[in-house]
Amino acid sequence: MAENTAPPAELPERTKEISAEDGEKGPSKSALKKAAKDKEKAEKAAKRQAAEDAQKQASEANDISKEAYGDLPMLGSQPYLPPKEKVPRVRLDEIAEEYKDTSSMTEKGGPEIVFRGVVENARAQGAKLTFITFRQDADTIQAVVAESETLSRQMVKFAGKIPNESVVLVHALVKKPLEPVKSTTVQHLELHVKKLFVVAKADQQLPMQVADAERPIPGEGEEEKPTEEEGGRPIVTLNTRLNNRVIDLRGKHNHAIFTIKDGVINLFQEFLRARGFIGVNSPCLLGAPSEGGASVFEVKYFNTKAFLAQSPQLYKQMLIAARFEKVMEVGPIFRSENSNTARHLTEFTGLDMEMAFEEDYHEVVSLLEELILSICEGLRTRYKKETDLVRSIYHVEEFKLPEAGKVPRLPFSEGIAMLREDGVEIGDFDDLSTPDEKRLGALVLKKYGTDFYVLDQYPLNIRPFYTMPSAETQAKYDPNNPNAGLSNSYDFFMRGQEIMSGAQRIHDATFLEKRMKECVTPVDPQSDGLRDYVNAFRYGCPPHAGGGIGLERIVMLWLGLPNVRLASLFPRDPGRLVP
Amino acid sequence: MAENTAPPAELPERTKEISAEDGEKGPSKSALKKAAKDKEKAEKAAKRQAAEDAQKQASEANDISKEAYGDLPMLGSQPYLPPKEKVPRVRLDEIAEEYKDTSSMTEKGGPEIVFRGVVENARAQGAKLTFITFRQDADTIQAVVAESETLSRQMVKFAGKIPNESVVLVHALVKKPLEPVKSTTVQHLELHVKKLFVVAKADQQLPMQVADAERPIPGEGEEEKPTEEEGGRPIVTLNTRLNNRVIDLRGKHNHAIFTIKDGVINLFQEFLRARGFIGVNSPCLLGAPSEGGASVFEVKYFNTKAFLAQSPQLYKQMLIAARFEKVMEVGPIFRSENSNTARHLTEFTGLDMEMAFEEDYHEVVSLLEELILSICEGLRTRYKKETDLVRSIYHVEEFKLPEAGKVPRLPFSEGIAMLREDGVEIGDFDDLSTPDEKRLGALVLKKYGTDFYVLDQYPLNIRPFYTMPSAETQAKYDPNNPNAGLSNSYDFFMRGQEIMSGAQRIHDATFLEKRMKECVTPVDPQSDGLRDYVNAFRYGCPPHAGGGIGLERIVMLWLGLPNVRLASLFPRDPGRLVP
Repeated sequence: MAENTAPPAELPERTKEISAEDGEKGPSKSALKKAAKDKEKAEKAAKRQAAEDAQKQASEANDISKEAYGDLPMLGSQPYLPPKEKVPRVRLDEIAEEYKDTSSMTEKGGPEIVFRGVVENARAQGAKLTFITFRQDADTIQAVVAESETLSRQMVKFAGKIPNESVVLVHALVKKPLEPVKSTTVQHLELHVKKLFVVAKADQQLPMQVADAERPIPGEGEEEKPTEEEGGRPIVTLNTRLNNRVIDLRGKHNHAIFTIKDGVINLFQEFLRARGFIGVNSPCLLGAPSEGGASVFEVKYFNTKAFLAQSPQLYKQMLIAARFEKVMEVGPIFRSENSNTARHLTEFTGLDMEMAFEEDYHEVVSLLEELILSICEGLRTRYKKETDLVRSIYHVEEFKLPEAGKVPRLPFSEGIAMLREDGVEIGDFDDLSTPDEKRLGALVLKKYGTDFYVLDQYPLNIRPFYTMPSAETQAKYDPNNPNAGLSNSYDFFMRGQEIMSGAQRIHDATFLEKRMKECVTPVDPQSDGLRDYVNAFRYGCPPHAGGGIGLERIVMLWLGLPNVRLASLFPRDPGRLVP
Repeated sequence: MAENTAPPAELPERTKEISAEDGEKGPSKSALKKAAKDKEKAEKAAKRQAAEDAQKQASEANDISKEAYGDLPMLGSQPYLPPKEKVPRVRLDEIAEEYKDTSSMTEKGGPEIVFRGVVENARAQGAKLTFITFRQDADTIQAVVAESETLSRQMVKFAGKIPNESVVLVHALVKKPLEPVKSTTVQHLELHVKKLFVVAKADQQLPMQVADAERPIPGEGEEEKPTEEEGGRPIVTLNTRLNNRVIDLRGKHNHAIFTIKDGVINLFQEFLRARGFIGVNSPCLLGAPSEGGASVFEVKYFNTKAFLAQSPQLYKQMLIAARFEKVMEVGPIFRSENSNTARHLTEFTGLDMEMAFEEDYHEVVSLLEELILSICEGLRTRYKKETDLVRSIYHVEEFKLPEAGKVPRLPFSEGIAMLREDGVEIGDFDDLSTPDEKRLGALVLKKYGTDFYVLDQYPLNIRPFYTMPSAETQAKYDPNNPNAGLSNSYDFFMRGQEIMSGAQRIHDATFLEKRMKECVTPVDPQSDGLRDYVNAFRYGCPPHAGGGIGLERIVMLWLGLPNVRLASLFPRDPGRLVP
């Protein structure tokens, strides 16, 4: 039936037509009654529509601002504004800096700026005034949309209804506020809006607020609870935040975290490139598990299987054998460990390096010490703003760093002795537990005045098969106890937490095969995943050593984050593969 | 039985002991006979050993060079040489530069240098002279080990027997050769060896020679055959080379290829960082396939499945929605395509970027044009030596590049028109075949004088669902033909080969859902792999565009390599997962 779809004005004719089409049989009484009712309804609707149209027309006719606000079309292939109005967009941080001195600003004047920003929130104050807080990156600024001779009440109303988080294009005058604005990052300026266009409208209801993202998550073991200062706002758990990571990431401190994360990569590459390292990309897809099969992910690979690399270790070494003297790699690392802790991810970013040395693997240890100091120094100077921002939420003490060349390099045995002296019961060749490591960190800080130190010459039995036994251990070799003694391996610690692990590797194929068979968890040198690796050392390979850093862990530690997931854009753990 | 393991000198006593242990029963006749024979054998062996020892002792006694050569111990935790001899190692390229002018060198004099290098080959010329070619990175130099008052014949013999590819530590005098050495890269100098230690000995027989790696592989379709100039040396196929990639990579041009590859990454990051981009790491492990399920690898993920990312596309865009205005990523890309061609890999490196723009996606196209020109310029200036080296093997013309700001940006329709004019039959909305692309590249070169150009506004029906239809296409939208018209997308071409693909993306959730359902291969906006992605655009996302470069393809094209596998350290294809 056409009743409800025909436009109201044409309804009478249309009703007639239907009757005619129905042919000989006349309309029933009830049909006639219905038609009359419909007619009445339609007439009412038409009146209502006409009234609305008239009001709108009148409103538009007397809307002096009608060209100055509204929703922009979505297209991106033609200018939003007439070409003559195409003006460069500014950055709020630059404006804040440029107009640091507001003494010369008059009540009336002020430069006009155009920028794209986000509505953090819009508050209508009656019909004549709307306040908006605009955000652009980490900067927020207060703006007023006030009715005036040149700005209509309709525009004020429009401004007050823009949903939070919408992207807008703003033309505004820069003014000195009557008194400094307390709620924004730019406090010495405010904006008087002249034009206001919505580029991309956000939904009215978002699954969480950006402000929620900017509150700290509790530390491990602590309970999640609304803080007093926040006025008891409901808790948004880490899980909810990660489920809505796109909104969560909008938090200012999150931008700072990932700027710093990129900064660590940048500093790592810069330091090593300046020393002749080249960046390499080793494969993630392997034909067989290479470093013990327990924590490796299996991939369907056409008609066979592949495995995801648990580290670029074997490939870094093969590249040394291929005469690349100094290699570094930034790439994903995959660990199929079913650990649901604040410190484990199944996918993270590895910063790896490996280099040939001349006489002594301590040449490499020295370079790595310099590298870590250089990264910290770079973070401290180039990423101070971001570091301070994050540390304003997650409070952490500044690292106490030694001078270059003065990093304490303690033999493992000395670490054990210090712990024993402090009352810890531990054997000469036992691995350190996490609490032991933290305790030793505190002891080292007390004795040497630094949060950063190196523990050298770990017991052979707790290191991987490719680790070079120390000279003394090789000289005292006992076939009945082949894993006794120490190795040329080291861990780097920051405030009692391991940040890097490394070693001299075995560069002789025959000796490597022997160690593979004799080590605590023997592996088969002739297995598919290891054959090519072992063979690489039959072709003449120089002595070499290296190390690997877990990027997310460094970021977490630098910023005092309570959970490593906060240092991953889209974290992956045994229970999370989305978003 | 202990017969064969007891040391010869103790055998008689030991035999007695065994008899005693055997108890009452005396030895049998055959046992007695065997014991006598064994005794005789042992006595002979002892004599032989004594004679050898005596000869060795005598030889060592009158070996004036015995401290100056030999195999070094494998240990890396103590100096090879007494501390007083610990001298800095030099680099051959620096030495070649430092002693460019040999006019002041006398017959006798010459500075002494110490370096670690590789024996490319050692040739004994009688008993008194051995020639060795040493290699260090891309540099080779000739050296002589000659018997003299201070250098023993034993040392000359030792030098002549060092297997090729062994790593050595050399002390030598730098001399001016009688005439320039033709077979080495350093031609104006030669070395007179004073000390020679083997750091790591290579096997006598290697599965292939480094020299084999330095010959070109044939182009696609060409046959692999021994070249005349090479004296008909047997072919080493690409497959053999890749099976022995560690030796293959030792080829000088391979070091150059991977230095250039790292250079492209460096130039890409440098350009974008200077323009405010930050590097990001998007996940490789996804909860569901996101861009069509055909070419995605499946991973066993604890009790469920994961999938390897086919590109960071959706994550780059979600980061734009998360208010990261400009992001870049260098990371692995996985494609489960069963394509065994010279241009396909199952794992390669993607250089990706995405950015918000103000009014028109051509803002992004312009930046990408600059980026490509900047990378080419950087390769041309900073990596000239490496480029020339590779191009001496794989001959390719220099690219003809336009000036900045003058990159031809042709509408797709103009490309079609040019092809038609040249006799190609092709529809307005057909995709270009690879031969069409090459032909168009030639036509553009002829008309515009450049190898580099951009094809803009591709038909909507041949681009992915997230591509923004052009303004005109949106205005003319026909629900009966929703994929008609053009899109705000572009490909970049170098010499008729696509090097980058990109587009403006849809930033409105409602419109995106519509396109997902209407596009040529519809996808479900509410599926597990796409739900979070679509939702990201409900929260207010600015217009944005971006692009992606296949790193190996750029390197291949820049250097004229006939196979993309040559641009991957350890290439992965449907049939190769090792080494």
